[in-house]
Amino acid sequence: MITENQYFDGNVKSLGYETPEGKSTIGIINPGEYEFGTANKEIMHVIEGSLTILLHGETQWQVIESGSSFEVSSNSSFKVKTEVQTAYLCQYR
Amino acid sequence: MITENQYFDGNVKSLGYETPEGKSTIGIINPGEYEFGTANKEIMHVIEGSLTILLHGETQWQVIESGSSFEVSSNSSFKVKTEVQTAYLCQYR
Repeated sequence: MITENQYFDGNVKSLGYETPEGKSTIGIINPGEYEFGTANKEIMHVIEGSLTILLHGETQWQVIESGSSFEVSSNSSFKVKTEVQTAYLCQYR
Repeated sequence: MITENQYFDGNVKSLGYETPEGKSTIGIINPGEYEFGTANKEIMHVIEGSLTILLHGETQWQVIESGSSFEVSSNSSFKVKTEVQTAYLCQYR
């Protein structure tokens, strides 16, 4: 089953699937700034485009270019901003 | 704008977006075998999972693991089979 999700009035859309190692989603983020909460630990990979992120409790924004990734702990949150449509892979594991 | 597409009774779903270099889609392919036609040249990257592909005019199936990619010329076709839900990036350029 391929699940479809959208957030922030359709400015973020994702497709969910299962792997032998756990659930994953791939998605697109439109230009803008957003805040996401996490229930489980997430490993976020930028596939195409670029994300500028601020992890909960940090003060320094980080630029994550395509090919790079970052981790977000469970029960946390992070802010994301981007100036271009950006594709990501999110692994829950 | 993030476009939503589905093919083969929802066994392939994708999200389309624009990059400075051209259009791209990310998508998920359910286990099964499918044949796709191409209007434009495509560069297909396996993000997670694995695809076994047969390009038009070839007789040898190739296994494309995650992290690898293959090219399909315009006005062509290719067959794809997979045993696991597989995430891909398709770049039209």
